[in-house]
Amino acid sequence: MTTHVDATSPDLITVDVPTHWYNLAAELDEPIPPHLHPGTKEPVGPDDLAALFPAGLIAQEVSTEPYIEIPEPVREIYRMWRPSPLIRARRFEESLNTGARIYVKYEGVSPVGSHKTNSAVAQAYYNSVDGVRKLTTETGAGQWGSALAFAGAQFGIDVEVWQVRASYDSKPYRGYLMRTYGGTVHPSPSDLTEAGRAMLAKDPNTTGSLGMAVSEAVEVAATHDDTRYALGSVLNHVVLHQSVIGQEAVEQLAGVEPGGADVVFGCAGGGSNLAGLSFPFLREKLAGRSNPRIVAAEPAACPSITQGEYRYDHGDVAGLTPLLKMHTLGMDFVPDPIHAGGLRYHGMAPALSHTVELGLVQGIAIAQRKAFEAGVQFARTQGIVPAPESTHAIAAAAAHVADDPTEQVVVIGLSGHGQLDLPAYAEFLDGTMA
Amino acid sequence: MTTHVDATSPDLITVDVPTHWYNLAAELDEPIPPHLHPGTKEPVGPDDLAALFPAGLIAQEVSTEPYIEIPEPVREIYRMWRPSPLIRARRFEESLNTGARIYVKYEGVSPVGSHKTNSAVAQAYYNSVDGVRKLTTETGAGQWGSALAFAGAQFGIDVEVWQVRASYDSKPYRGYLMRTYGGTVHPSPSDLTEAGRAMLAKDPNTTGSLGMAVSEAVEVAATHDDTRYALGSVLNHVVLHQSVIGQEAVEQLAGVEPGGADVVFGCAGGGSNLAGLSFPFLREKLAGRSNPRIVAAEPAACPSITQGEYRYDHGDVAGLTPLLKMHTLGMDFVPDPIHAGGLRYHGMAPALSHTVELGLVQGIAIAQRKAFEAGVQFARTQGIVPAPESTHAIAAAAAHVADDPTEQVVVIGLSGHGQLDLPAYAEFLDGTMA
Repeated sequence: MTTHVDATSPDLITVDVPTHWYNLAAELDEPIPPHLHPGTKEPVGPDDLAALFPAGLIAQEVSTEPYIEIPEPVREIYRMWRPSPLIRARRFEESLNTGARIYVKYEGVSPVGSHKTNSAVAQAYYNSVDGVRKLTTETGAGQWGSALAFAGAQFGIDVEVWQVRASYDSKPYRGYLMRTYGGTVHPSPSDLTEAGRAMLAKDPNTTGSLGMAVSEAVEVAATHDDTRYALGSVLNHVVLHQSVIGQEAVEQLAGVEPGGADVVFGCAGGGSNLAGLSFPFLREKLAGRSNPRIVAAEPAACPSITQGEYRYDHGDVAGLTPLLKMHTLGMDFVPDPIHAGGLRYHGMAPALSHTVELGLVQGIAIAQRKAFEAGVQFARTQGIVPAPESTHAIAAAAAHVADDPTEQVVVIGLSGHGQLDLPAYAEFLDGTMA
Repeated sequence: MTTHVDATSPDLITVDVPTHWYNLAAELDEPIPPHLHPGTKEPVGPDDLAALFPAGLIAQEVSTEPYIEIPEPVREIYRMWRPSPLIRARRFEESLNTGARIYVKYEGVSPVGSHKTNSAVAQAYYNSVDGVRKLTTETGAGQWGSALAFAGAQFGIDVEVWQVRASYDSKPYRGYLMRTYGGTVHPSPSDLTEAGRAMLAKDPNTTGSLGMAVSEAVEVAATHDDTRYALGSVLNHVVLHQSVIGQEAVEQLAGVEPGGADVVFGCAGGGSNLAGLSFPFLREKLAGRSNPRIVAAEPAACPSITQGEYRYDHGDVAGLTPLLKMHTLGMDFVPDPIHAGGLRYHGMAPALSHTVELGLVQGIAIAQRKAFEAGVQFARTQGIVPAPESTHAIAAAAAHVADDPTEQVVVIGLSGHGQLDLPAYAEFLDGTMA
């Protein structure tokens, strides 16, 4: 005898790590509208992007292949925490008095606690292939900055992060995390760039913004030969990398629910999390194997899908990026300072916006307190404290199934954990949350 | 086609959840010396413990059965995150220039991020069977308090935690976590108990201690009929519950290393983590199936195994608990304020101390900066930021295998993650760590 083991069905469902990324756009009849050059308004070509991105990522940005092989060095790193678990959330179901069977795809097991590593590792790899020595990026709360710092450490690439000063000062933990991985983090605006110095000259006490931080990171990448820039969401190649989430979830679910999913909920800020989760489910729908409804949960404070216009707009505040066809609240829109920092983006990934236009994805706006209420209910039943971003998906799902005896299969994407966001939970519990 | 999957060996090795806890003591020729009544100095009987603990746990404290079935309601909760992964740490191996194959048993995937939940859930269950309505406990950094708050939420038991004031004030995140789970947390000493009021009268500015917090929690449990007390380490029943760690690890390892482990490293504070990890490996050794060496990594600032005496001593500072036969630095010993709060305990679990005396476990003392140096190296290679406690095991293992080409199989117990301890990492990186 070696040990006693449990032969009954485990609630942690596992499969193998995907070998390919999945590119839904290649299977749609209508292509995603191209990005346009901010000057000429013509579609951007590879040369326009070469100063910022390596060749491998530029090729992915416009790829028409449905499957793109994940390079072995990337897969080797994915295997450190992937496949991420699909968890049957039985106790949360009970608390909702529902007939639904709820499965949670949980990305909080990644090294930095969110889905951001899926693209960070891929981006660091393609930059290393091109001999890039340093990557610059911006970050708000710090999820993306810490993911890129981790990824850079795996490929011997220095990572320099400009973090919005308000977050850098008030929420220092993720900055410590970047440094633990060997990265460098500056509050933005900084006196290290022309852009930063100009902003500080204008307002020495500015608390910064993502738009300012982008400008600093892009300036450093554009003016140094061995340096490139990395973006954590919105672009097609980022959406592509995140498809590992949904591919795993489809396969994990198939083992326990042969009919597949009825509804899939995910939170949407820049869109890479929701697209990464849902596009493999849409592949199943297009192939007629199942018929899931996809719901993008966005914050009421920044409702780009439900309230924005679908038009060309800049991805940044300064208007330096290509024009992207997307749902946008306008590049000058400044959302309220909600705790879900990862959802405070004026636009939406063109790939995701396109599926919304095609009627494949629906948006729903969730108020902050409603989101945290669901987050607390989830934490008390399932133990996992969800990231503030993820609570939006949980709240949308809860509203859909609560007190409804209908048997249905619901998948919730949990993009990350909220252990570094606990002060926000305390604010909610204290009743002082806006 | 549904999806492309990876057919090569995954680095996340998984098995099923154990059905039984494993009780090494039942298989040793010499029994663990009994706990003694602090007044009579006679072995304590069930009646002596009934005011503090429920019947199910008292039975486990003196059990001579090698396997005790895990009740289904406990197993159902374990399945929310168990089996915890055994991870082949290939990139850490490379950075050490070693011939060793290193496997990490990672308890940081639990809801609160540490192994403490394994016993918290069991203790809450047995208290619920006895109709207990409230559990009181003490906590330092908050790992145990948050684990018990989570467990209480699963069984409808109120959890009231007295947290050492120094931690309550300076490291508030785990207090927020307890509240998110529905628990109540007070800084200790508080004015809610006689013991607390007496301590405050003596020194209104005291920052508290674990010993003071124990006194407050025990007082409330002893003076309320529907209230019991819960302890997060040291006692035999806690060690028993933690055996799920080692049972899974033995089985996970068997799938990839038929010869089993050569050396097993774990950190030891009160001893439940190291005992839970290592006792199933000792079962394999006693049965002649493998011959692992077990190493208990303790902090140089609190070296109970390597520097303490093996004798009867109290488990708390006030001398209220039974006398325990253990390695102890003396109940009045006050360790330096190292960041590994979970290792700052003057004694050691009697069950673990007993195996040390039998020559089955060896201690090693690790200096704090050496521990964090290994923690940073592990984070940069494997992504996981280890808890300060766990870095001691990593440092001990690294010293054992670095630059040694010998092929050997090493298991490291990673008792938790360090996401809420990032300020300590920043202190190390800044060079300001003592």
